Amino acid sequence: MGLLVVGSVALDSVETPFGRTEKALGGSAVYFSVAGSLLHPVQVVGVVGRDYPMGELQRLSQRGLDLRGVTVADGESFRWAGKYGFDLSTRETLETRLGVFANFRPVIPEPFRDAGYVFLGNIDPELQLDVVKQVHRPKLVACDTMNYWIQGKRTALLRLLKHVDVLLVNDSEVCELSGDWHILRAARWILKHGPKLVVVKKGEHGAVLVEEGRIFYVPAFPLEDVFDPTGAGDSFAGGFMAYLARTDDLSSANLRRAMVYGSAMGSFAVERFSVARFDEISLADVQARVRACHDLVHFEIDADLVPTG
Amino acid sequence: MGLLVVGSVALDSVETPFGRTEKALGGSAVYFSVAGSLLHPVQVVGVVGRDYPMGELQRLSQRGLDLRGVTVADGESFRWAGKYGFDLSTRETLETRLGVFANFRPVIPEPFRDAGYVFLGNIDPELQLDVVKQVHRPKLVACDTMNYWIQGKRTALLRLLKHVDVLLVNDSEVCELSGDWHILRAARWILKHGPKLVVVKKGEHGAVLVEEGRIFYVPAFPLEDVFDPTGAGDSFAGGFMAYLARTDDLSSANLRRAMVYGSAMGSFAVERFSVARFDEISLADVQARVRACHDLVHFEIDADLVPTG
Repeated sequence: MGLLVVGSVALDSVETPFGRTEKALGGSAVYFSVAGSLLHPVQVVGVVGRDYPMGELQRLSQRGLDLRGVTVADGESFRWAGKYGFDLSTRETLETRLGVFANFRPVIPEPFRDAGYVFLGNIDPELQLDVVKQVHRPKLVACDTMNYWIQGKRTALLRLLKHVDVLLVNDSEVCELSGDWHILRAARWILKHGPKLVVVKKGEHGAVLVEEGRIFYVPAFPLEDVFDPTGAGDSFAGGFMAYLARTDDLSSANLRRAMVYGSAMGSFAVERFSVARFDEISLADVQARVRACHDLVHFEIDADLVPTG
Repeated sequence: MGLLVVGSVALDSVETPFGRTEKALGGSAVYFSVAGSLLHPVQVVGVVGRDYPMGELQRLSQRGLDLRGVTVADGESFRWAGKYGFDLSTRETLETRLGVFANFRPVIPEPFRDAGYVFLGNIDPELQLDVVKQVHRPKLVACDTMNYWIQGKRTALLRLLKHVDVLLVNDSEVCELSGDWHILRAARWILKHGPKLVVVKKGEHGAVLVEEGRIFYVPAFPLEDVFDPTGAGDSFAGGFMAYLARTDDLSSANLRRAMVYGSAMGSFAVERFSVARFDEISLADVQARVRACHDLVHFEIDADLVPTG
């Protein structure tokens, strides 16, 4: 089934203790779609300026990005610049220049409106809701958000949640939105406000899928060298949604697998600047990491000590 | 096989956002043995003053604590007082009074010297090594340590590690000892200095078992209400070691189960002050939490997408 993402298409300048990059491909829709396209074709809706390296995006599209929804507008592309501290756990935003993104009003191309799986990247919740109204009968709508919207557009965000199946956010966001500092209680609060599922991303501490009455936890794949954490969350979302779109199976068992594919994609994202790592890997590499993740957490309950049932 | 622990037997005064307790049972040997005794009898070696509530310890011993190695000395028992911050992730030590613990020189009673499983709680590494020399042919020796010894008795600690099979410490300790801020690299450094296994406890972020060439990760069991984090690590160690002593099986598969039993015990420890929670539960409760932990992380690799091998 079709997989649609709406979000930012940006140029990122990032400095980490290990190096720096200037005006590299970035933005939620880029990380999502480049990671996701290893599993399933992705339809992208966004806006760029005339300065955007469309050739590079086109090259990536050979893997299955449909860029007919990316508008090229007069002006500069969205730019973000940030710097990470020594242990990569803190980051400082040095610059945000919205450029053409400031006037982004997503229009979903007709061929994309039948998408079965829709991901609303982190943009104004009013625009996210407008996207929901443009698509026909999606099987699953997931959305991200951030503290800026939680604080500034809370009512619109809560309205949006009524139309969303999966809220996919990080730990501080779920806590801020719910007003509860405890992640599980915060997630359960969300379940009462629309979504049937909450995915809480905890960075190096993995991610949690909270359903009514059941929790699944996947660790972050342990890497000896993390290079640049930018985009890990959007790559996670890309893996998660693309796996669901590919398999078209929303069973609890399959949602769990989707979480692991998400975690695998997040772990690749951080091994290079920008989306460079996805250019080096194939589906087989993703599958190998999924198997490694299984080995990482797998154990058998002892039949002797633990009675069944 | 016999399971021996040598460590502190203390009186703890703890303040958390949810309440306070005064002079409650505490210390590494107490948490270890009370948790572990749900799975296997534990032989305890330690020292207390005449003020210690031996009746309470005796009551706990009905579950399988052998306290013949606990010496009662003239003076006050070891006392520790601490206070936790709002989110329980930071704690401040208000008072440490060593009392009779200052002159603790562990003497292993003759009947304990055949123990197959030995846990050296966090005490002076010279004393830990002395304990190793007193026991006959243990199958597995595990030890804990802390920043105080890492900084002050590094040489003795490294000498001890040559005689230890499992180093069981928290994340900051393994990093400080190895000089590497990355937990996995830090653990591999340890593997080159004696131990065959490293267990790194990460508090609310779970624990990792690092063997040569293989890693196992167990999350902390997700609790909605954590009451008092004190003793979680020693309870983990108690569950881990007691499971191994009970099953007497050091296969990789069984070490993984031991990690999960450790995690389960740690999760019970934090639900009440002191060791009070262990007084309310049975082996069946522990097993139920092990099953819940299995459900928390379990997923099946899809046969379709992922080729075997």
